[in-house]
Amino acid sequence: MQDTTKENSANIEEQLKVAQLIVETALKERKGYEYLRELSVIGPRLSGSENSMKAINWAYEKMNSLGFDKVWLQPVMVPHWERGKAESAEIIDLKKKLSVLALGGSIATPPQGINAEVIEVKDFEELAKRKEEAAGKIIFFSRALDQGQINTMAGYGGAVDQRVDGAVEAAKYGAVGVVIRSITTKYDNNPHTGVMIYNDTIPKIPAAALGYLDSDFLSNELKKNPHLKLKLKLNCQTLPDAQSFNVIGEITGSEYPDEIVLVGGHFDSWDVGQGMHDDGAGCIQSLEVLDLFKRLNIIPKRTIRCVFFINEENGSRGAKEYANFADTSNQKQLAVIESDRGAFTPIGFYAETDSTEIVNKLQSWLPVLEKANIEWVRKGGSGVDVQKIKNATVHIGYVPDDQRYMDFHHSANDVFEAVHPREFELGSAAMAILSYLLSEEGL
Amino acid sequence: MQDTTKENSANIEEQLKVAQLIVETALKERKGYEYLRELSVIGPRLSGSENSMKAINWAYEKMNSLGFDKVWLQPVMVPHWERGKAESAEIIDLKKKLSVLALGGSIATPPQGINAEVIEVKDFEELAKRKEEAAGKIIFFSRALDQGQINTMAGYGGAVDQRVDGAVEAAKYGAVGVVIRSITTKYDNNPHTGVMIYNDTIPKIPAAALGYLDSDFLSNELKKNPHLKLKLKLNCQTLPDAQSFNVIGEITGSEYPDEIVLVGGHFDSWDVGQGMHDDGAGCIQSLEVLDLFKRLNIIPKRTIRCVFFINEENGSRGAKEYANFADTSNQKQLAVIESDRGAFTPIGFYAETDSTEIVNKLQSWLPVLEKANIEWVRKGGSGVDVQKIKNATVHIGYVPDDQRYMDFHHSANDVFEAVHPREFELGSAAMAILSYLLSEEGL
Repeated sequence: MQDTTKENSANIEEQLKVAQLIVETALKERKGYEYLRELSVIGPRLSGSENSMKAINWAYEKMNSLGFDKVWLQPVMVPHWERGKAESAEIIDLKKKLSVLALGGSIATPPQGINAEVIEVKDFEELAKRKEEAAGKIIFFSRALDQGQINTMAGYGGAVDQRVDGAVEAAKYGAVGVVIRSITTKYDNNPHTGVMIYNDTIPKIPAAALGYLDSDFLSNELKKNPHLKLKLKLNCQTLPDAQSFNVIGEITGSEYPDEIVLVGGHFDSWDVGQGMHDDGAGCIQSLEVLDLFKRLNIIPKRTIRCVFFINEENGSRGAKEYANFADTSNQKQLAVIESDRGAFTPIGFYAETDSTEIVNKLQSWLPVLEKANIEWVRKGGSGVDVQKIKNATVHIGYVPDDQRYMDFHHSANDVFEAVHPREFELGSAAMAILSYLLSEEGL
Repeated sequence: MQDTTKENSANIEEQLKVAQLIVETALKERKGYEYLRELSVIGPRLSGSENSMKAINWAYEKMNSLGFDKVWLQPVMVPHWERGKAESAEIIDLKKKLSVLALGGSIATPPQGINAEVIEVKDFEELAKRKEEAAGKIIFFSRALDQGQINTMAGYGGAVDQRVDGAVEAAKYGAVGVVIRSITTKYDNNPHTGVMIYNDTIPKIPAAALGYLDSDFLSNELKKNPHLKLKLKLNCQTLPDAQSFNVIGEITGSEYPDEIVLVGGHFDSWDVGQGMHDDGAGCIQSLEVLDLFKRLNIIPKRTIRCVFFINEENGSRGAKEYANFADTSNQKQLAVIESDRGAFTPIGFYAETDSTEIVNKLQSWLPVLEKANIEWVRKGGSGVDVQKIKNATVHIGYVPDDQRYMDFHHSANDVFEAVHPREFELGSAAMAILSYLLSEEGL
């Protein structure tokens, strides 16, 4: 017994030392933050776009240049939707242009646009009650993200059905188009896009997001004149699926090369802004986990692998492809960690598992993890990409503070300047420390 | 026993309900944030300045207009230092102007400025080693805030001796002036000022802060040419003490009017930017605690008092005045809570006490406090102002996330736009919930 105790306390001392070094190095050198700046210059990275391929090539080169043991591209076909030339929305009666973005996946309007009266509703229930009025109209889903919720992700979750399913619900009753109030915590006029879906049994109608402030404007004007007409022009189209790739790099484990600690994010973004908080940052933090190991000459016992999943935003094809590969390989996916909640100050890790034993083990590392500001490990959701990997021992979600995330999400606001270097680097450090502990100790 | 348990669980249910209401109201209505915007328009509020009196009058009117039970101004004489017209610093050899701000309390240079060679040192130890070279020179203290520390306040603490005592240390060896590298986490060129002090037995020499980037520039140029001359011109002066005031408002307790729960911040700021994170926000959050009670019609059992302490930055005269009043009054200062760490996402409360019983009691409220994102209550420092109140039962410091604070602190960066509405409002809510619990339960 005594020997084990001694060994444990020696381990903890070493672990604290390494953790401290990881945090200091990340915060002082800010290398990941500079990689993120390089990525930002390429621009947004919607699946199937030319930009996304530029970014994939950049990432492949970057991982190679950093001396990872193995770097490869994992081919996958992805949906290819394009916005086309700029959209427009205008209140015809007032000659007032509204700030607008087509929702991802929407069909175009006819080239001359759609002219129709607008019905404002707060939810599908209200729409159902007014279904007799809907034929030939544009439905305006105007329910705002509930700012009263302390968790902005929960606020988002409470509003996003309008964006995802609004077009199907409206088309059921004969509506010809949909506009929604942007789902955001920021009271500005940059529209927030995001995925919408059709149902093949229901007519497809075009759908777009209006800026938050212009949604207020439209709502106020409709109170004065319920017969206002909106002219909506969208130029988007869905092209044939395109060739794309997950980008994968690893440092091979010295003792258990076939046990994988995966860190990742999704590399695609929407086509406005620069896709930094969502989720360039999560990818580059994952890359920096490996880079920190290299810079600090930490030789991991288990393999540390970073995966840039493509196409999380509108299909998750990259995640499915990696999961197929992982679930049929002989390697053990020990822990799969995702960073896709923005690059803000770290708070905790969610472990998506029924095993109290695993949660306890992760929690036993809190004295080390707190070097990077991690306050807790709790049961909770991991991430849309890593969730697809069925055979992983534990799925983990990195959790930063979320108060500002929805200001940026899916909009032109999500640019490099919105990322704070210390907050970003603490995320890299938190994931690096957890990866190091998993690699040293296993589960 | 059973009755007590029932009563306790009924209490907790009620407390959770009230806490939820407080958080929702703060986040949705953002009233405090709008008050802060009004304050920001007045501009910075250095002790003794005309602006500070405008702000004091604004605050007095605001508290009255919000219907607090009692509002009063507590007179106090404060130091009155003025920057005068804009400073300048120039590397004469290169005709290169450097971004510069006099430190608070510094004397002026002669009107024509000081021309002198520069010696760069990292700390007082290095200065002592080079004391033979110091006579007639300007000493450049260039040690940066250590970004490797996870706690930016600790990083600040490790560098601030250069600003506070640099002039005394340099003058000991015959130096004629001091410039320091701004103490900041932001790599920009806005200088960060702050208080410096003289020692009456040592000659007084002028002292100023250089922008971080210009500090790099000067440091690099000195490596090429150690005989570079700097021309420093400061126009500041110390005037006679000025009349000023603490601003105090309260909601009188319905059961224990003479037991006080105090919430406060300091109302003075440095004379650049708008003094928002430091510490207009702390004051307005405190005001909003009372305003939330009013808006929600919560009648507190104990008196809730907000105090805007004047002159924290360069004298703490307001805090001393209030402490004199409090320590000689018949009222019990049950808990005195300060917000002076910026308006970022709440994390915890520090209790500055030796009483484990009190800490345990505060910790027992965590299930309620977590409604406003409070993760912990720990022993730790409260705040410079409330610390002066000797007879308080417990001194408490509100602790938000600190990763961005030093970007803004004492510089032109500290403006309204640097404050995030949700982060700010969560601070108001956290302090309101704690005040409510203290008022209901006592200690």
